[in-house]
This record gives sequence, structure tokens and C-alpha cells, in this order.
Amino acid sequence: MQPEKLEPWLIEDEESVFSCRIFDVVRIRATLKGRNKTHNFFILENPEWVNIIPVTKDFDVVLIQQFRMGERAFTLEIPGGLSEPGEDPLTAAQRELLEETGYEGGRAIPLGMVQPNPATHNNRCHSFLQYPVQATGKLNLDENEDIRTLLVPLREIPDMIRRGEIHHSLVLNAFFYYSLLQEQLGNRSAWSELILPA
Amino acid sequence: MQPEKLEPWLIEDEESVFSCRIFDVVRIRATLKGRNKTHNFFILENPEWVNIIPVTKDFDVVLIQQFRMGERAFTLEIPGGLSEPGEDPLTAAQRELLEETGYEGGRAIPLGMVQPNPATHNNRCHSFLQYPVQATGKLNLDENEDIRTLLVPLREIPDMIRRGEIHHSLVLNAFFYYSLLQEQLGNRSAWSELILPA
Repeated sequence: MQPEKLEPWLIEDEESVFSCRIFDVVRIRATLKGRNKTHNFFILENPEWVNIIPVTKDFDVVLIQQFRMGERAFTLEIPGGLSEPGEDPLTAAQRELLEETGYEGGRAIPLGMVQPNPATHNNRCHSFLQYPVQATGKLNLDENEDIRTLLVPLREIPDMIRRGEIHHSLVLNAFFYYSLLQEQLGNRSAWSELILPA
Repeated sequence: MQPEKLEPWLIEDEESVFSCRIFDVVRIRATLKGRNKTHNFFILENPEWVNIIPVTKDFDVVLIQQFRMGERAFTLEIPGGLSEPGEDPLTAAQRELLEETGYEGGRAIPLGMVQPNPATHNNRCHSFLQYPVQATGKLNLDENEDIRTLLVPLREIPDMIRRGEIHHSLVLNAFFYYSLLQEQLGNRSAWSELILPA
């Protein structure tokens, strides 16, 4: 039998139990009101994340290929990264776009935001699309970034996702928000030609 | 100028630097061949994750509402969780479905899998759809789960996502894979009536 009403967990105390450059692990001791239950949760505190779908005037998407140590393999992704302290998500996304691909220009629109994992993450990932972008050649990779850019026709994205060639959860989120936006704008050929909102 | 060819990072050594019930933090020291570069990566080792879109014969989706400590708020999600050691993803997804909602029955189909975050996670999330499910009332919640189930018409899912009412990255992935499958099956009304593959 399910509860009439859900109670939030009440936080008794919390402490950082591990820190590294990209996240902190925080232990939160919390109690479920009305029941005799206390539990230690372990969550990851992260900065806000961003990503951006760069589309050229010919409806090619600028993808990046890089080695990812979590997966221990090369992945195909759209540009993205971490917001710096005080940096708004769009500025961060356009900075990452230019740093990682050397592309810029055109108009950026917000696509949507997600919680990467509400159970364990405290942050959000903000997705954008920018069109039409063009190459400036101004690459500025971080010390540990070793990245190749690829131009892929927008119309090939759905099959690349179906085949698992693009499988980064947060990258798929950006393309899903894009398809929902195009549907809302009445664009029946979202994967061959995009429509920007007014 | 981008590299002709990308080199994988060569792993020198790794050690677990933090452990808790749901993940381990592992430090990996790696070198980029051909360059004089060594770097410490911190990644999260997780079990495989699963989620499942349960759809009733009336095309309602069985959603769950629960408090999530990472977000520190209540979220709307589809059922899901962790695969137990040696448990295949579909078995895990159907177990979570029954435990969290008390629904079962019908036929399950694989939708696709993602990497939650190739930069930091070593695991995958496997998504399924099951139709038609029906309530058996057999709830079996984990000690720290306090969950309500809601029936939401499938046709309302896109607007709930656009409004941010459903914003869990891995839940959106399941619905995106669902929409890509329906598109492939030629179903132009994917959000009002689903087609199962042969």
C-alpha cells in the first residue's frame, strides 16, 4: 500500500568525506519524519554542467572525439564542460564550444536542462543549440584535452544514436530537447533542417 | 590545429580512494603517449543501472514520485535502480518495476543503453519498455524507499519534459530511445499510441 503523502527526509548533518578537482563526496545523515529511520546518503557535489549542439549553415553538427577515462574509450560528443564559478551556463557553453572546436558565431538558443542523477548529483546540465556556427581555428584545449572535431550531417544523428555511436547520456538529452522543440515548432523534418524559435 | 590521430591515455596505476554503498571513487594515474604528460583522473565505479517505461493497456505511463537526496527534492521518474551482481539488466529492470510500483505483466523490449557520464562513470544505464503492465499490488520497497506511483497518459510526457516536471537525465534517455524506435517503426503518433516491434 502506498503512502498517502510523501515526507521529505530531514537533514541532521552533513560533511565532505572526499574531494577532488571535479567533485566532492558529501555524507548526509537524514531522518524520515514520522518514522524511526535514520540513513547516511552519499552524494556528489559538482559545478553546473553545460553542453551545446553546434550546427553549421549546411546543417552539419560539430562533434568532438576524445578519450574518456570513465569509459576508458574514445567517445563522440557535442562540446561541453563545467561552468566556472559565477559563469552563466550560456557563456560557459559558448566558451567550451570555442575552446574545444574553434567554432563560433550564429545564434544560441536554450534547449533545456536536466539533473544528471537526482539521487547522487546536486547539479544540473544546461543544453543549448547554436546556428549557424563557423570555424575560426581558435582552438584552446585544456592541458588534458586531446580532441578531434568531426562534421556530421544532422540527419545522421538519429541512426548514430540508434547504433550506439553516440551514447553519452547528457548528449542524448540535448538532442532529445532539440527534437521536442522542433516538434513544438511544427517542424516535421527536424533531422534534416532546423527551425529556430522567433 | 587538431591532432592527426588521437592517442589513448595509458594507465600507469589505479587505486580506490573512497568507497560507499553505491559507488567507489578510483584514482587513475595515466600518461598520454608521445607527450610528456601524466595526469590523475578520478572516476566513479558503479554497478550497471537500469530503468523501464511501464505502459498500461490504456497507454498510461506508471511514474514514481520520491525524495532524492542529490537534488534534495521530490522527483518524477520511471522505475529503475541498480543491477545486482550477476543480474542481467532486464531482470533487474523488471524486479525494480515490481518492487517500486507493484506493476508487472505484458512484454518487455530493450530501448537502448547510455553511458551516464563517460568522463567519470564506468557503467551503463540500460533502458526498457514494458507493455501492457497491470497492478498486482505487490509492493516491496527498499528500507529507504518511500515512493508514490502516478499514472500519466503517454501523450502528456513531452509537455511534462518541456516544463521540467520530468528532468532526470536517464529517464529522458529512455523516452528519447522510445521516440526514436517509434519513428523507426513509422509510428507518427508515438506519444498517443505505441507500436511494439515484431
